[in-house]
Amino acid sequence: MSNSYSQQLRHASLPTDFRLQAQTCFGEAIRFSASACAQYAHDESRIGVMPPQAVLKARNKEDISALLALCHQYHVPVVARGAGSSIEGHILALQGGVALDLSDMNQILAIHAGDFCATVQPGVTRKQLNEALRDTGLFFPVDPGADASLGGMCATRASGTTTVRYGAMRENVLALEAVLADGRIMRCGCLARKASTGYDLSHLLIGSEGTLGVISEISVKLWPQPEALAVALASYADTKSAVETVANALACGLQLARIEFLDRQSVQAVNRHAGLGLPEQAMLIMELHGSPASLQEQVDTLRQLCAAQDCSHFEAGYDLAQRNRLWAARHQAYFSLLQMRPGARAITTDACVPLSQLAQIICQSEADCLAAGLPFAILGHVGDGNFHLLLLIDEANPHELALAESLNENIVQRALAAGGACSGEHGIGLHKIRFMQAQHGAVALDIMRSIKHSLDPHNIMNPGKMLPPA
Amino acid sequence: MSNSYSQQLRHASLPTDFRLQAQTCFGEAIRFSASACAQYAHDESRIGVMPPQAVLKARNKEDISALLALCHQYHVPVVARGAGSSIEGHILALQGGVALDLSDMNQILAIHAGDFCATVQPGVTRKQLNEALRDTGLFFPVDPGADASLGGMCATRASGTTTVRYGAMRENVLALEAVLADGRIMRCGCLARKASTGYDLSHLLIGSEGTLGVISEISVKLWPQPEALAVALASYADTKSAVETVANALACGLQLARIEFLDRQSVQAVNRHAGLGLPEQAMLIMELHGSPASLQEQVDTLRQLCAAQDCSHFEAGYDLAQRNRLWAARHQAYFSLLQMRPGARAITTDACVPLSQLAQIICQSEADCLAAGLPFAILGHVGDGNFHLLLLIDEANPHELALAESLNENIVQRALAAGGACSGEHGIGLHKIRFMQAQHGAVALDIMRSIKHSLDPHNIMNPGKMLPPA
Repeated sequence: MSNSYSQQLRHASLPTDFRLQAQTCFGEAIRFSASACAQYAHDESRIGVMPPQAVLKARNKEDISALLALCHQYHVPVVARGAGSSIEGHILALQGGVALDLSDMNQILAIHAGDFCATVQPGVTRKQLNEALRDTGLFFPVDPGADASLGGMCATRASGTTTVRYGAMRENVLALEAVLADGRIMRCGCLARKASTGYDLSHLLIGSEGTLGVISEISVKLWPQPEALAVALASYADTKSAVETVANALACGLQLARIEFLDRQSVQAVNRHAGLGLPEQAMLIMELHGSPASLQEQVDTLRQLCAAQDCSHFEAGYDLAQRNRLWAARHQAYFSLLQMRPGARAITTDACVPLSQLAQIICQSEADCLAAGLPFAILGHVGDGNFHLLLLIDEANPHELALAESLNENIVQRALAAGGACSGEHGIGLHKIRFMQAQHGAVALDIMRSIKHSLDPHNIMNPGKMLPPA
Repeated sequence: MSNSYSQQLRHASLPTDFRLQAQTCFGEAIRFSASACAQYAHDESRIGVMPPQAVLKARNKEDISALLALCHQYHVPVVARGAGSSIEGHILALQGGVALDLSDMNQILAIHAGDFCATVQPGVTRKQLNEALRDTGLFFPVDPGADASLGGMCATRASGTTTVRYGAMRENVLALEAVLADGRIMRCGCLARKASTGYDLSHLLIGSEGTLGVISEISVKLWPQPEALAVALASYADTKSAVETVANALACGLQLARIEFLDRQSVQAVNRHAGLGLPEQAMLIMELHGSPASLQEQVDTLRQLCAAQDCSHFEAGYDLAQRNRLWAARHQAYFSLLQMRPGARAITTDACVPLSQLAQIICQSEADCLAAGLPFAILGHVGDGNFHLLLLIDEANPHELALAESLNENIVQRALAAGGACSGEHGIGLHKIRFMQAQHGAVALDIMRSIKHSLDPHNIMNPGKMLPPA
């Protein structure tokens, strides 16, 4: 764990009265043992090992409410978590307290097919929801790769491969229920597709990373399954030509549901892991939705666009099984890449920039990484201007760690200079707090702190995350 | 003006020191005369005549900042306004103070065609922006009918005819700049298409109706102009069949950019006003976007869907000039209907409900209105579940006024019972404050008040609007 985090670790003992009351309230469901807490000491980030001091698996919103009321009374931190797939340190218990595990709250409460929406508990995962929707002709599009929980996806304002067509969580949540720091249960939003009825509290909670409340119920938009789809692969000798195709494709108004970029290293890793035999060059994977006739027409347009950008290989297919294999491989790129340097730790960057500057920023980052000599890959949801750099480092080597952080920082600074975001979808957590001032400026940060203070006066909700100290 | 509002009117005299300092700061640009103030005493709602005590036409954000700092110091209310097209009383000076007119801040600051976005001052209107975009191949889709200012459209979380395809303001704002109650200037959001970087302050301001800050700059998404478009008209003997077509059309995944419902009375009014010769029945007007080949395919599907719902007349056209005439007529429906009862006042309802309940709720409302015997029309953006009832009443007749308010209330109560919204796009203003408790419940309202208090401790920003007293 880096020094900066270890200095922030604070572990007041849990107050005795809190333990007694929590035991009275939850019985054996609340666990204080070191072995129970050790299971909740990390996320996917390997930023550090930060165990909580207690663990509660919530069964329902009443559990969450009772726990928060107690924590509020005794000023005990609460760190809510869903699937645990965070990679920026969101769910590490920096200041101890209670890990609130929502993974058992995994009921799909209602599917309103006629209203194109579903209401779920926060522990429901996106694959689980789509499985349940299979016979409705509808689907839930937000796809961050990991089989994340919808609660976690709300809390980090997640997005993913289909955002270019269907939007991120920000655009796909109709209503929320959240338990506030003092245990009160708040509903916000409604089941109508739009509303102009006061402050947008749903959007305040979406992306709040557990610092304002615990999301206990979510109503999301559903979309009609496309009549048919096509997947097109376009390979390029260089990264720049690949990425520059994106804006042209978007300007044509094609029904692009996904536009993913994989650099040569990513394609190699995916090939090795899944045996796909793809050309080992920079590549765009694009998915088009529509009627069979419109797909043919769109593929033709796309083929011309890619050729104009000196694409070296283009192929398109309409087979669903093949398409699913391809996207499964894409989603395993992270783990495939990890295997390129066994035992390595991955440090990922997630930046989002205005489209006109995407090619230049990706190419600059590529050049930096080549100069630095660390194994790396760049891939991303380029239709949104969002990309990830993944660096594989030897964690025991402080030089590599520092080099990786400095490459990460370069990308973020370029994104900020371009008017972009220091995180497109992974969130701030612990790892990106240091960029919040440059991202938002002093006034917006001050307003964020005011809102935090008014909703969570004792700073018990995921303390030390997202907002830098004043 | 109804008694409930006149009781809330409060007009402390402007403090002498405030007047002197404002004159020092703004010179003749700040006006205190009764004649100047009278020009700002009403909106399109005819809810009442509520003049401010001073008027300032802001030239730039520094003017806004200087005014707000002064008003903050002296606890003087500020009511910001753009085009003045509000119909729920948002911009009436209920507690006096300064009317801050933003209509001269009408510069288009930047068009970033390669990033599919534009940055504008708040007084820019949607037509002005689209005129400036004409040669870029892009357009700004949000279309509330009125040529509203983008600042006002943000402040009321506006939407309109194209929301079913392109989203509302909520989905189309990337970044904002706002002047806070104490005069500080805050930037929020960024030019990237998505971001996961802290609390979503942009969405907090969108729909805040001038109660949290004055929006001084807006960056909006732009969309590629469709390659081609088709407009389809479908007429029905009854309202129910027309509205029930909507969910079926959406489930098919057609590229529907607009789905408008006009009842028989609306069609009659539009015919009379614009001489369109449309069949005088309940009608859907639908617009499809896509390639010429895909349009033909989509129109065929739509024709079948409408026929299955006992449509009595269906026609489709691909002519742009004809399409523009039709939508111009649709947008004039409000004024066309007003002419059906000369001298009448229009009371409009704007509710938004889950789609599965739309047909039933519209039909119930229609039956209520027929029973009440007041001239009325129902029309709306039914692809979103959003509809408006327009009642034409003799303002001098208290019986008609009470009847209209009770019909309005019935619709809102049905929308709320269905899990919908008491306003889809017009906002709360003064007229719908009484529904806020039922819409949100006590906890959410309490949180809204906390946020309001922390951003505007002296309650100078559009006081008395949107939030009911605790």
